[in-house]
Amino acid sequence: MHQIKRYLPILFWAKTYNRQTATSDLVAALIVTIMLIPQSLAYALLAGLPAEMGLYASILPLVAYAIFGTSRALSVGPVAVVSLMTAAAIANLGLSDPVEIAMAAVTLAFISGLILLAMGFFRLGFLANFLSHPVIAGFITASGILIAASQLKHIFGVQMHGHTLPQVLGDLVAHIGQTNLITVAIGIFAVSVLFWVRKGLKPLLLSFGLTPRNADILAKAGPVAVIVVTTLITWLFNLGEHGVKIVGQVPTGLPPLTLPNFNPGLWNQLFVSALLISIIGFVESVSVAQTLAAKKRQRIEPDQELIGLGASNVAAAVSGGYPVTGGFSRSVVNYDAGAETPAAGAFTAVGIAVATLFMTPLLHFLPKATLAATIIVAVLSLVDFSILKKAWGYSKVDFAAVAATIVLTLAFGVEVGVSAGVILSIALHLYKTSRPHVAEVGLVPDTQHFRNILRHDVETHPHLVTLRVDESLYFANARFLEDYVLNRVTCDQPIEHVILMFPAVNEVDMSALETLEELNRRLTDMGIALHLSEVKGPVMDRLKRSHLLTDLSGQVFLSQYEAWQWLKVPTPERTEQESIATDQ
Amino acid sequence: MHQIKRYLPILFWAKTYNRQTATSDLVAALIVTIMLIPQSLAYALLAGLPAEMGLYASILPLVAYAIFGTSRALSVGPVAVVSLMTAAAIANLGLSDPVEIAMAAVTLAFISGLILLAMGFFRLGFLANFLSHPVIAGFITASGILIAASQLKHIFGVQMHGHTLPQVLGDLVAHIGQTNLITVAIGIFAVSVLFWVRKGLKPLLLSFGLTPRNADILAKAGPVAVIVVTTLITWLFNLGEHGVKIVGQVPTGLPPLTLPNFNPGLWNQLFVSALLISIIGFVESVSVAQTLAAKKRQRIEPDQELIGLGASNVAAAVSGGYPVTGGFSRSVVNYDAGAETPAAGAFTAVGIAVATLFMTPLLHFLPKATLAATIIVAVLSLVDFSILKKAWGYSKVDFAAVAATIVLTLAFGVEVGVSAGVILSIALHLYKTSRPHVAEVGLVPDTQHFRNILRHDVETHPHLVTLRVDESLYFANARFLEDYVLNRVTCDQPIEHVILMFPAVNEVDMSALETLEELNRRLTDMGIALHLSEVKGPVMDRLKRSHLLTDLSGQVFLSQYEAWQWLKVPTPERTEQESIATDQ
Repeated sequence: MHQIKRYLPILFWAKTYNRQTATSDLVAALIVTIMLIPQSLAYALLAGLPAEMGLYASILPLVAYAIFGTSRALSVGPVAVVSLMTAAAIANLGLSDPVEIAMAAVTLAFISGLILLAMGFFRLGFLANFLSHPVIAGFITASGILIAASQLKHIFGVQMHGHTLPQVLGDLVAHIGQTNLITVAIGIFAVSVLFWVRKGLKPLLLSFGLTPRNADILAKAGPVAVIVVTTLITWLFNLGEHGVKIVGQVPTGLPPLTLPNFNPGLWNQLFVSALLISIIGFVESVSVAQTLAAKKRQRIEPDQELIGLGASNVAAAVSGGYPVTGGFSRSVVNYDAGAETPAAGAFTAVGIAVATLFMTPLLHFLPKATLAATIIVAVLSLVDFSILKKAWGYSKVDFAAVAATIVLTLAFGVEVGVSAGVILSIALHLYKTSRPHVAEVGLVPDTQHFRNILRHDVETHPHLVTLRVDESLYFANARFLEDYVLNRVTCDQPIEHVILMFPAVNEVDMSALETLEELNRRLTDMGIALHLSEVKGPVMDRLKRSHLLTDLSGQVFLSQYEAWQWLKVPTPERTEQESIATDQ
Repeated sequence: MHQIKRYLPILFWAKTYNRQTATSDLVAALIVTIMLIPQSLAYALLAGLPAEMGLYASILPLVAYAIFGTSRALSVGPVAVVSLMTAAAIANLGLSDPVEIAMAAVTLAFISGLILLAMGFFRLGFLANFLSHPVIAGFITASGILIAASQLKHIFGVQMHGHTLPQVLGDLVAHIGQTNLITVAIGIFAVSVLFWVRKGLKPLLLSFGLTPRNADILAKAGPVAVIVVTTLITWLFNLGEHGVKIVGQVPTGLPPLTLPNFNPGLWNQLFVSALLISIIGFVESVSVAQTLAAKKRQRIEPDQELIGLGASNVAAAVSGGYPVTGGFSRSVVNYDAGAETPAAGAFTAVGIAVATLFMTPLLHFLPKATLAATIIVAVLSLVDFSILKKAWGYSKVDFAAVAATIVLTLAFGVEVGVSAGVILSIALHLYKTSRPHVAEVGLVPDTQHFRNILRHDVETHPHLVTLRVDESLYFANARFLEDYVLNRVTCDQPIEHVILMFPAVNEVDMSALETLEELNRRLTDMGIALHLSEVKGPVMDRLKRSHLLTDLSGQVFLSQYEAWQWLKVPTPERTEQESIATDQ
């Protein structure tokens, strides 16, 4: 029973559900619905799909998430980046028949859903961590640019097919001659009004004496006004006849029950794209969910989030939708509007369902340029180059990762960009750890502390070399340490003892173990004893399972100071002292 | 000038070269030559190439290494594993024309040479470290088995083409009917004598009163005796007519000057194989070189070794040879025989050159079964499953890497095997570090030491949580730490302070930095102060370049004890105390 409960978070919050929470959920749902209708149409357009698929992707998936999701404010549905990745994934297939394209999108959502569910059941949420923050930031920024650029075709009313910046701009230049001026006028009007709505509307409403809350809600409805106005104009002056692309016929009625295409060839072609969409979608969704949860001292369960999002995508697939995830801006609106439980999402689903039942005819004359404008205004907020500056200041390696991700995403598209980003992050991390920081240390006079001989004025002895290793030892850096030590001891100094300080060594894998054994052998050949000090408990447990400790020419000291006390006197003198000691 | 010297180690040892060193080098060269003649023929056979290419690969490459190499005992030339990889690489091309096959081998040597030279010039020797010891051990063992199995075709005198264990055994079963009994007889005779020579010959010679040294040298010549005997038998009874495969016509004369094939398509097909051959060859060669150098307190320069081996492979390519590297057994023999400088290698080259000039006619009737026998006896010493036991005892993760490498190499061939091994090592390492060890610590009474509250009986305070992080923080484990801390503090305990102890944190990359900033924000929202203690110098320098330290709700303490002293009193009491303090 508890097992089942774990997978059904709804059982926890439904118990305490009451009128008060219902009211705030309903208000939030209303606002989000108003925001979601144009967004869902626009993102479907961005994904290269018929407008209604955006609406379908905004109904059942929200209900599924309300049942399986753990975030109380997350607003699931079509989002910009995932829509762009969907477009790229479908473009790879080189289909032309709209029915096949729609079916491919449905199948993509289904595969992505299965991947997310599998990751959830096997608790593989940590895989998302291999997308480093710089890579994500760079990817989102580059995607924002790609998306905005890709929408120019609707603003100019020309044909474009590219999925990389060079292609898109190339297409634009090539077809600029076919620009439809009325479309451009509508596009520019919509973009400028929408930008003004973002910045200028709320203050204006406030100056009209509205309460901040109402002003806020009305401002949220701003985009709807733009849609209504441009639709009316297009209808009145029959601009469709004058080359203005319009949404046109949108089927009325609830989502059709669909089944994905189970052709193995297609699954094979879509799998990598689905995997990338799943991981990017999960990362984007979980980060906003965590941020909003933290504000209310709530926790979200990442592995359960995978199941929630997986269920949503499967739901999208069986109801004629396409891949969905938790959207950032919408979730923030949902939270600000007072959503208290995932039920808010379910209510939003009802709102969208009503819209698909009664409002689709009104969308017939909606110009695509207006939708493109809403997308452009939405995604430009994703573009943020400050990450480049921040990374440059903090670490050149991280900067390289961001810069490469941005450039590769723009130049070769989202899939190459994000894959390269991940591989690069891992490669750079391995490169860094393959050259560990090793410091030769000495005793800080009158203390028991040991510090870098280059940074501090410390006590040393010519027959004693103490090296502090500042990195876990594993296959990639074991040989480096060996070379470092052997180079250090091949000198004319009368070295008797080498002490390796391990306070920062958290792991010694088998390659490193064999290297230490080898190092011990070679130092012994040179008549030098190898000692270890300050070895961590877990590492010690591990070493006890090997021959190293028995073969070690020296000893293992709990503290470096102890080692120092024991070894600081060179052998001859010590024996001397000992003899003296015995004499007394 | 010094720049040039760095790339020409010969300039260092040639100065001090004298008659004494020359003598010992000559003796070593003689013994190695006797050993190398049959080996070079056999390994050429293993690589699926004409016998003379083995001889050609044993002349110029040795001279090149003598000029550019840094090891004084390494014996460069054809070796078993690289020959097997060459066979696999050429098999990928699916060629049938012997001339094309030979040219492909020459080109492979050339590409591999260029790769090694490039790695040397750019000091990329560390790349070889990404082959973990367990992976190498597993790979060598599996290769030994593959090689031995692949030679059965010559022992049974049947056709076989497979490059994986299932294929090879399948071929054997399929063609067992065509077994040539005379060939089998020769094969079994050769194998058993060679095994006896390894174990039994030297003691026998000693019992005949030979000096250990001479006995040793004669024993080394044992394989030659087997070759002479079987060749004579084959010639006397004209066994070639009775289906015994013989080496046949081997062209007399010095290696021909050859040029590799520069067809880009071919280079494209061979590149990955050449890369794998280069890295495996380098690792095998550098490890034996280091072992032998250490015995004489000498050092080898890994990056210069790359240049030495690169030059050798280019030399092999321009003189009709195939990929070469430093062989383990031969180098040990060379060292034991008293080689003092790389000149020994040059002298060996002269010996082989003489052989190609005058001895090749004598090889005409040499049965391939004899060569196969020498290979089998040689490679079975590479097979060592003890690594499995050792790995199992030490770490299950390393065991997984060895086992997978062995299985994949046997099942899918050398290239898949070694690639999978590398990827697996990296993946397992990332997985391990993605779940860092975090210990909650308390004060050991009457000391300044802090230890794990689960392992020791320590002092703690309910308002104070101290977590020691035992891993560098980077993108793959940053979120794990965040979740860990947030889970720890979401309890009914009146927590006021969280102290993160960083004595073992050697790196904080940008993802981890942003996670710490986020953690600080969230803890602040919960009214909990975040403190850091025992932050390393390099990490501190890095953090100073960020906003973390200024935004931190708590402080950074040099020592954990200091933090403890400062924070151990809960806020209300402290203010109380302070007021008291001021009263006095």
